[in-house]
Amino acid sequence: MNYKFSARISTLQPSAIREILKATSSPDVIPLAAGNPAPEAFPIEEVRLISQSIFENRPVEALQYGVTEGYEPLRKRVLENVKSKGIGKNFDNILITSGAQQVMDLAVKVFCNEEDTIICETPSFIGSLNCFRSYRLKLRGVEVEADGINVDMLEKVLKEEPNVKIIYTIPNFQNPSGATMSLEKRQRLYSLAQKYNVMILEDNPYGDLRVEGEDLPTIKSMDTDGRVIYAGSFSKILAPGIRVGYAVADSTIIGKMTVGKQTSDVHTPIFNQMLVEEWMAKYDFESHIKKIQNIYRDKLNIMSDLLDSELSDIFTYVKPQGGLFVWCKLPDSVDMMDFCKTSAQNKVAIVPGTAFTVEPNEKSNHVRLNFSTPSNEKIVKGLKILSQVKKQFI
Amino acid sequence: MNYKFSARISTLQPSAIREILKATSSPDVIPLAAGNPAPEAFPIEEVRLISQSIFENRPVEALQYGVTEGYEPLRKRVLENVKSKGIGKNFDNILITSGAQQVMDLAVKVFCNEEDTIICETPSFIGSLNCFRSYRLKLRGVEVEADGINVDMLEKVLKEEPNVKIIYTIPNFQNPSGATMSLEKRQRLYSLAQKYNVMILEDNPYGDLRVEGEDLPTIKSMDTDGRVIYAGSFSKILAPGIRVGYAVADSTIIGKMTVGKQTSDVHTPIFNQMLVEEWMAKYDFESHIKKIQNIYRDKLNIMSDLLDSELSDIFTYVKPQGGLFVWCKLPDSVDMMDFCKTSAQNKVAIVPGTAFTVEPNEKSNHVRLNFSTPSNEKIVKGLKILSQVKKQFI
Repeated sequence: MNYKFSARISTLQPSAIREILKATSSPDVIPLAAGNPAPEAFPIEEVRLISQSIFENRPVEALQYGVTEGYEPLRKRVLENVKSKGIGKNFDNILITSGAQQVMDLAVKVFCNEEDTIICETPSFIGSLNCFRSYRLKLRGVEVEADGINVDMLEKVLKEEPNVKIIYTIPNFQNPSGATMSLEKRQRLYSLAQKYNVMILEDNPYGDLRVEGEDLPTIKSMDTDGRVIYAGSFSKILAPGIRVGYAVADSTIIGKMTVGKQTSDVHTPIFNQMLVEEWMAKYDFESHIKKIQNIYRDKLNIMSDLLDSELSDIFTYVKPQGGLFVWCKLPDSVDMMDFCKTSAQNKVAIVPGTAFTVEPNEKSNHVRLNFSTPSNEKIVKGLKILSQVKKQFI
Repeated sequence: MNYKFSARISTLQPSAIREILKATSSPDVIPLAAGNPAPEAFPIEEVRLISQSIFENRPVEALQYGVTEGYEPLRKRVLENVKSKGIGKNFDNILITSGAQQVMDLAVKVFCNEEDTIICETPSFIGSLNCFRSYRLKLRGVEVEADGINVDMLEKVLKEEPNVKIIYTIPNFQNPSGATMSLEKRQRLYSLAQKYNVMILEDNPYGDLRVEGEDLPTIKSMDTDGRVIYAGSFSKILAPGIRVGYAVADSTIIGKMTVGKQTSDVHTPIFNQMLVEEWMAKYDFESHIKKIQNIYRDKLNIMSDLLDSELSDIFTYVKPQGGLFVWCKLPDSVDMMDFCKTSAQNKVAIVPGTAFTVEPNEKSNHVRLNFSTPSNEKIVKGLKILSQVKKQFI
């Protein structure tokens, strides 16, 4: 039969990246396109022991239905942990989600009607952009500079647009640009949100992956009036396959998000939540973070050294202080899409910058390179291939 | 600050049942309100062994990101399994979801615009009804009779309502009524959906929990034109806490639902999917089902024997042929809400029938009793208490 799909889904395209990943998933392709954490960063032995202990000692709890808010001991532990970083005032509460992606979904579910506006950095994480599109929101892009969102442009859009409900931002090692928002811009962004009375959705999946420089305060830590919904994730510091994330926000908001989550997936799997809780309780969380920072520092350095020595005549980039990605600009003379296709033909998968733009027809001459997924050897091999590929373009 | 929430969430109330469960979660309350599977039905030892083997042999696969469609070996195995029951034509495909609840969410996400109509049995499962409400759909209820939905009334509504997109039904051991739809009504429902060109969302979480009588063909097995979205679940036959369900539908629909799922939670946790797959592969699925059918048959018989001997002067009911619930009607002279409150005060949690009605002001003089959660001893104790409580009402 001929199906008539909803308006929200008819215009939505599958994530270009996930499609690229599928197309280039064969083992002989060098994966500079994905955003997968390095497998060597997974605490495998710890996970094995914890899972054994859970199914030996508390199997029924792990397998039975739980409450939508999340596994209570995990909620407490995460809240303690973020409070030690200045996140979470007395009015705040926590919701455990099925990955941080669900925080974006629930935030717009509870705050936005169709046709409302959400301001996004452009470029930005396609998973979030598509989520907002799926609610039929109007997306307005504000460019990301080397030190974060262009705040003057942000104010201009806030002035122009009557129905802005949320500003969505990834302040640390932004995906895909790698940019980290300066302290001044964080403060200014918060003030602007106050002035124009809009919410802030702060997405911080990479915050712990700093490999250089000093941590900056989260916007949530400046939140005096319950305006910030903070999205955290265990995907990058523990493992993404377990799908455990969380939202920190004012209790009223968490209440509404809980109602929203109830109708989406009832609750996040209990075993997965117990696993995270026991891992945080039993192991040295901070030293694990240091360990993975070391892994990513090495990988980033390997990539950036080669970018400097082999590819500086075709790529311009600002070395990120953390995260998983390097955002490389091609000269105007180079056809970006063509470059990506030729790379793929040569068995190196990279993502075209247009995958991340807020406007569908927005131009981009960037490509995103990921350094977390490939082994160190594959990073070297991949960049050597790109330095061959480039010869066809310059 | 004063929040202005979206229209969809402002009108949505938290599930009355989940709230009752929270209020009556203390261990001295007898839980006849929940819908939890019996803990003794969980294959704990098998789950323990499988989880050990996964984290020993394939830890990286279990912890890394996966594709949105689901873990390929599980998709294949489930499709094989449902095909052996006549579900799934050549045009069909499968999507692994985060519990069956997500199938409802994705089905309306891809098919319904705000203000579209969905026809539901009334009473029906509150989790689904609230999900539909969260999409701002118009819900039209059609009464459930002892042999399933009233098909004449269904046709009347289909004639009246211009924008019906979906008929939502739980044909087997319906929640809360316990009713099983007759074969004739299944065929008639499918024909009506054809005649009025609407989709059918067939929710079958309890299908394997038949304790009496013969299996009837699913509506999906009659689906010649790709009109049925079938929702299956491992919650009741393996464990609900792992949150693994699935949709079987035409490939085009599964494609759209996959795009919808990408923006909701990226994918269902991989470990959880591997667990289900290995369990299906290694263990005798059919004999496990027989085992849990035996558990539930005993529980149902204990409950229904006591209903007959102790409570027949206050409860009228039709004994269900399976599932988890007995739907009991109180005499018109009894105030149903009052009865539920008095029961709760006497430490027996039951659910008022109004929790399941499609229209908010729809009357109900039923209560729902669950026999899967409490131990056999607690069923006896709970019903003895109810037989004391009743004295205040008749």
